[in-house]
Amino acid sequence: MINPTYLATMSGRIFFYDQLYNFVEEVFLKIGCSEEDAALAAKVLLSADLRGIDSHGIARLNGYVRLCEAKRINAIANIKTIHETPSTATVDGDSGLGLVVAPKAMQIAIDKANKVGTGWVSVQNSNHFGIAGYYAMMALEHDMIGISMTNASALVAPTFSIERLLGTNPICVAIPAGEQPAFVADLATTTAANGKLEILQRKNEEAPLGWIQDKNGKPTSDSHVLKNGGALLPLGGDREHGSHKGYALGAIVDIFSAILSGANYGPWVPPFPAYVPMPENMPGKGLGHFFGAMRIDAFRPAAEFKLQMDQWITRFRSSKTVPGHDKVLIPGDPERESEEQRKKNGIPLLDVVVADLLSLSEKLQVEFMVDSP
Amino acid sequence: MINPTYLATMSGRIFFYDQLYNFVEEVFLKIGCSEEDAALAAKVLLSADLRGIDSHGIARLNGYVRLCEAKRINAIANIKTIHETPSTATVDGDSGLGLVVAPKAMQIAIDKANKVGTGWVSVQNSNHFGIAGYYAMMALEHDMIGISMTNASALVAPTFSIERLLGTNPICVAIPAGEQPAFVADLATTTAANGKLEILQRKNEEAPLGWIQDKNGKPTSDSHVLKNGGALLPLGGDREHGSHKGYALGAIVDIFSAILSGANYGPWVPPFPAYVPMPENMPGKGLGHFFGAMRIDAFRPAAEFKLQMDQWITRFRSSKTVPGHDKVLIPGDPERESEEQRKKNGIPLLDVVVADLLSLSEKLQVEFMVDSP
Repeated sequence: MINPTYLATMSGRIFFYDQLYNFVEEVFLKIGCSEEDAALAAKVLLSADLRGIDSHGIARLNGYVRLCEAKRINAIANIKTIHETPSTATVDGDSGLGLVVAPKAMQIAIDKANKVGTGWVSVQNSNHFGIAGYYAMMALEHDMIGISMTNASALVAPTFSIERLLGTNPICVAIPAGEQPAFVADLATTTAANGKLEILQRKNEEAPLGWIQDKNGKPTSDSHVLKNGGALLPLGGDREHGSHKGYALGAIVDIFSAILSGANYGPWVPPFPAYVPMPENMPGKGLGHFFGAMRIDAFRPAAEFKLQMDQWITRFRSSKTVPGHDKVLIPGDPERESEEQRKKNGIPLLDVVVADLLSLSEKLQVEFMVDSP
Repeated sequence: MINPTYLATMSGRIFFYDQLYNFVEEVFLKIGCSEEDAALAAKVLLSADLRGIDSHGIARLNGYVRLCEAKRINAIANIKTIHETPSTATVDGDSGLGLVVAPKAMQIAIDKANKVGTGWVSVQNSNHFGIAGYYAMMALEHDMIGISMTNASALVAPTFSIERLLGTNPICVAIPAGEQPAFVADLATTTAANGKLEILQRKNEEAPLGWIQDKNGKPTSDSHVLKNGGALLPLGGDREHGSHKGYALGAIVDIFSAILSGANYGPWVPPFPAYVPMPENMPGKGLGHFFGAMRIDAFRPAAEFKLQMDQWITRFRSSKTVPGHDKVLIPGDPERESEEQRKKNGIPLLDVVVADLLSLSEKLQVEFMVDSP
């Protein structure tokens, strides 16, 4: 193993998927997950790295480990359905890894859709689940539309508020097509995801106005303002540009994920960093997710639908473009291109992430293969 | 009856709900609706005026009549379910008034939710349905969450496109509470609804940047630009401010409403003004809607849920505010306040709308009571 200090000074390195997968799986086994759960969690976590959503992938592995050490995550959770109807279920995640609770809950939604056309599952007592996209996309191979969302710890100020009351609360909707790749819209309900702001912080660059406000609710471009009582802004940025809509979308995610299930909501959602104290007077259990699956052929024959989706996608992709842009994208295009590219050419990791993984490797005595430079 | 020319020169007048209701109901009877349908359509249409969404209410009555005259709306439609599962249905609106097709389709969603927990209905072969809010709110009295959306004729350019390929495609989600009024988010998936732009056009005022682009895709504040090949922009305004998210949301509405059902989608959605020619090579039937109903007690006891919704609402409403704003609003607050106020004090109509109603009154020989000034 290479000296971590040496590696931390290097520029970003490339790792192959299998190399990272083996390491992540071993780490989850070390913290007590079953073999099945460790494999599942590794696959879900690394889907973020493949799809180019680096903020939600292996960079967070150490964070999950720390939450286990702090007993905020239960590696051997007994995930169970506590309430159900033919088309719905409420699932108690037993404080488990979101990366394990969420795919199991989405599978329940798919099973219900198989029986009665659609399935809808609200989850309490879970933890951060990685990228929403993984779960919605589980529906695709079943010729179903998949929907996934989660609440998250509060970083976002509703319109006219100076308090952070909502997470970046993402929504993903995945829709199968025929010849064309699937439509996959995976979006934080803020103007910009927190991961994008973190990139600017790292480079010490300014943020566009409309992304964040300072502690007094004033628009600012200071990308470090979240450390000083500032907040991310809902999609729209300000009232004149529709931020009340982004706020409403984030609120819907919070309510579907947590009030339907009995999880914590709004400012009471547990923080991801294990060193941040839990909020006081928490009204629910853990954080919440919401999943949906709709069988295409519950509405019309799947082949007909997919043919028309192909036509929809082709029409939009061939749209005349604004000068300077060569094509109109279909939601999911950038992530799919990243996945194709990174499966083939490897996944770049920042030095700071590599260093973090090496320290994890030392602590847990799990080998992390870093080729010599 | 007062001379329409005289009235058209007056400033806005106030009308009481019952007065408008009787007129609208009579108009729908005159164009051939059954008594039941005329009453329903009048109630749905005027819910927009009560809730302060003036662009979607009685101001459009003449437009619906013209669509009937042009045989684009069938006043005696035979609305039927053409495909179903226990939790889903696809409804053929038989070219009926959206104001009649949509509440009947939403009722099917509610009935299915009563049986299996949730109900989801996609509608083809319909027409403009007024405000999305009416349908989602139908679920509230059943202790259900209601969801409604519709596609609409293309006014919106996707991110990087100079073509109008989507309507303002609204989404409404209505969530019951206990002591607190319901949470009702009713939002166009654009930065600003077209109705807001029309207000600026009427006053010859500029629009904020981020609402519209010109025919070359350049940001502009010229509120008349839609007449010259311009387009409304998706929520977010530009790529840097998340317009790809607004585009994705509008696309999801289009697909759920029209590709699931077999209606026209994207640039092929029929126009509302009867004088605008229909698009060529239309791939589906009429325009499309999508409705959902989720029984609260399919997830947890409704009383528990409503208690926590009250707590959620109270916490958000009591948030510390940005200086200059006295409270953080809950989605639905402005529309509910408008409804309370207008039920009591009447509904103001612009002169141009009054004149239009008077001409309709003359044409159809339906009395429209306008008190002398």
